Amino acid sequence: MKELFGNAIVGQSGGPTTAINATLTGVVKGAIASKYIRTIYGMRNGVEGLMERRIINLNETLNDSEKLRMLERTPAAALGSCRMKLPDPNSASDTDIVVFEKIFRIFAENDIRYFFYIGGNDSMDTVAKISAFGEKIGYDIRVVGIPKTIDNDLIETDHTPGYGSAAKYVATTMQEIIRDCAVYTTKAVTIVEIMGRDAGWLTAASAVGSVINGQAPDLVYLPERVFDMNAFYDSVENAFRKHPNLVIAVSEGIRFADGRYVGESTQSGSADVFGHKYLSGTAKALEMAVKLRFGCKVRAVELNLPQRCAGHLFSKTDINESVAIGKEAVRAATEQGVSGDMMVFERVSDAPYCAAIGHRRVADIANKVKFVPDEFINDKGDFVTEECCRYILPLIEGEATPTYYKGIPQYLIL
Amino acid sequence: MKELFGNAIVGQSGGPTTAINATLTGVVKGAIASKYIRTIYGMRNGVEGLMERRIINLNETLNDSEKLRMLERTPAAALGSCRMKLPDPNSASDTDIVVFEKIFRIFAENDIRYFFYIGGNDSMDTVAKISAFGEKIGYDIRVVGIPKTIDNDLIETDHTPGYGSAAKYVATTMQEIIRDCAVYTTKAVTIVEIMGRDAGWLTAASAVGSVINGQAPDLVYLPERVFDMNAFYDSVENAFRKHPNLVIAVSEGIRFADGRYVGESTQSGSADVFGHKYLSGTAKALEMAVKLRFGCKVRAVELNLPQRCAGHLFSKTDINESVAIGKEAVRAATEQGVSGDMMVFERVSDAPYCAAIGHRRVADIANKVKFVPDEFINDKGDFVTEECCRYILPLIEGEATPTYYKGIPQYLIL
Repeated sequence: MKELFGNAIVGQSGGPTTAINATLTGVVKGAIASKYIRTIYGMRNGVEGLMERRIINLNETLNDSEKLRMLERTPAAALGSCRMKLPDPNSASDTDIVVFEKIFRIFAENDIRYFFYIGGNDSMDTVAKISAFGEKIGYDIRVVGIPKTIDNDLIETDHTPGYGSAAKYVATTMQEIIRDCAVYTTKAVTIVEIMGRDAGWLTAASAVGSVINGQAPDLVYLPERVFDMNAFYDSVENAFRKHPNLVIAVSEGIRFADGRYVGESTQSGSADVFGHKYLSGTAKALEMAVKLRFGCKVRAVELNLPQRCAGHLFSKTDINESVAIGKEAVRAATEQGVSGDMMVFERVSDAPYCAAIGHRRVADIANKVKFVPDEFINDKGDFVTEECCRYILPLIEGEATPTYYKGIPQYLIL
Repeated sequence: MKELFGNAIVGQSGGPTTAINATLTGVVKGAIASKYIRTIYGMRNGVEGLMERRIINLNETLNDSEKLRMLERTPAAALGSCRMKLPDPNSASDTDIVVFEKIFRIFAENDIRYFFYIGGNDSMDTVAKISAFGEKIGYDIRVVGIPKTIDNDLIETDHTPGYGSAAKYVATTMQEIIRDCAVYTTKAVTIVEIMGRDAGWLTAASAVGSVINGQAPDLVYLPERVFDMNAFYDSVENAFRKHPNLVIAVSEGIRFADGRYVGESTQSGSADVFGHKYLSGTAKALEMAVKLRFGCKVRAVELNLPQRCAGHLFSKTDINESVAIGKEAVRAATEQGVSGDMMVFERVSDAPYCAAIGHRRVADIANKVKFVPDEFINDKGDFVTEECCRYILPLIEGEATPTYYKGIPQYLIL
């Protein structure tokens, strides 16, 4: 392997998570410790900011361990994010190629030899394209993707950084909502909507209490299975035989057999005074349906943004792994010559939990989705299996909290 | 003062909070330590369960310090709650008087001489009525109310147990939502809806960052001021001059000048396919309006149930005070002969924070609302004042967490 000396740049892209800055911390620590990297730069707002030369020197900005520690426990992307999709690097169009030429001109200006990009599915597409263009023009650069997504839907990795903390938030909040809903004796249904448009990993986390303390939602619906209204009514009726206060967890992405989202169905005839079609969300749509069918009190709760930004409730496992995978990305690129790859976790064992860090070709990963497998969902499609819970449990293990000052968390702003 | 020996009973009523079980813990500890109380009973589901003789012996149920410690940090009402309103104790109607006769028969059967009721506004009405009926029939009982409500809207007390933890959750989550919303450079508005139908105390807590670290929502709207759509648009336009990502906090209870809730206005013409009028909530209604006016991305976030049940994020001050006020209620009733009163906090000083515990006639408190005072809201009605934040700050101070087991909190189920 050829030794490659120069500068490195790191960016964040896609939706925020609570652990994406832990990975940034790992990359920065790894870069500072590496003999191959002189300066580690950060691009603001991913490749979008890179193209506008909005670059900061992270050796200077993060020059003490206190700042790095605070960054590790700051939710959302501290460098800012973007949703920019790069064109095809083999495009024949001049306007397409100009984009890459600009990026590589900026690389050359700053002697960038290492490019680390922390993101989800779309961001891995960026990694693949920058890597491909670099090879095409013979510019010596190592390009490594580092996964993050609360959705846990990247293939080739056991799980993604950010998922564990989001799953812990969902699992914990569900325990609390169940307690809250149990206080009255009247018949009532609470429907909790959890993020996950295509994959139900996060919604599945709502059920982990079933293997810990027996406290779990009565029903759990993932987008991997077709949602059938009559089967749903049957399941609700069965659940009412056990107790009067039902809690139901649903993925935002559940759909009917015809492909329509449940969240858009009930409102199809509905519009606001401005004439806008009203999209209320999945829980809200089911709230209406259950109210009509069972005539009881129904409440819709959308867990919403806190699922991905609740930095006051990190999974310690997730934070530690997120830092480690960032560091390891730097080591792999500098010492093993890895490029065009995404870093991955390989689970070695469940109990005691052990996961190794490896890497896979990013071109095989980008734009694909890892669904919750069939054996993780029960036959009726209204709950998850024990096997599913056993997969999730180690990822939510351990607590890590930010430092509080005057009652609120201290987060680092770059 | 006459010495009164016998048994005690404690109940919880109204909406759950994270601190209502801390107060229960205080009452139980106080009762166990008191020479006047033989047995401390708990009524399930407040007076509703009391009338059905659903009573448990808490000396037996909570017979070790580990259980009491876990109860202290369990959200929602562990004894269960109710929303039962008692009739007028001076009513001439037989069916009304039968209710009280039944309650006092159950008291006599169990030699109940102390009645502690933890609740909000409506629960204090229950306390006043039971106290009045006891005096009327000459049954020797001391009846004491202990406040709880996340709404902080009881008069005669500086604040209410449960508010501090809910306020800490709102303040913390707001810090995280602000970080989350700052990651993109595109123009966007996030509208966060916070509980509080009549009083804006909880929404005001979203702004405390303004006096701590400068991170606060751009605009904050409380129900104490009339909501004017044009003034709102002006404030949003002004805020956009500072940065592209706005975060706006609104109380669920904000209303227009004609008294209509903002949350019902935009949907007035809207119904679902079943013909139900669609009530979407305040943030959702404003989402539509802002989208139409400014043409940018708008997101509505309802903080919902976690505000009142997020036991993973207690305010230490709130929990300690909630235990203390429960204990003090027992001491006041047994050693000072207090009856027909609600326990209150009297703030002695802001910095260092110090609050004493006293008591006031419950008849003067029940069915009244303490609003956020005028000097706590700015002139434009779109933010709170520094004075308001200084009032809230000590109440959210300190962190207390539950014990975690396998990644989720351990809560006590009675």
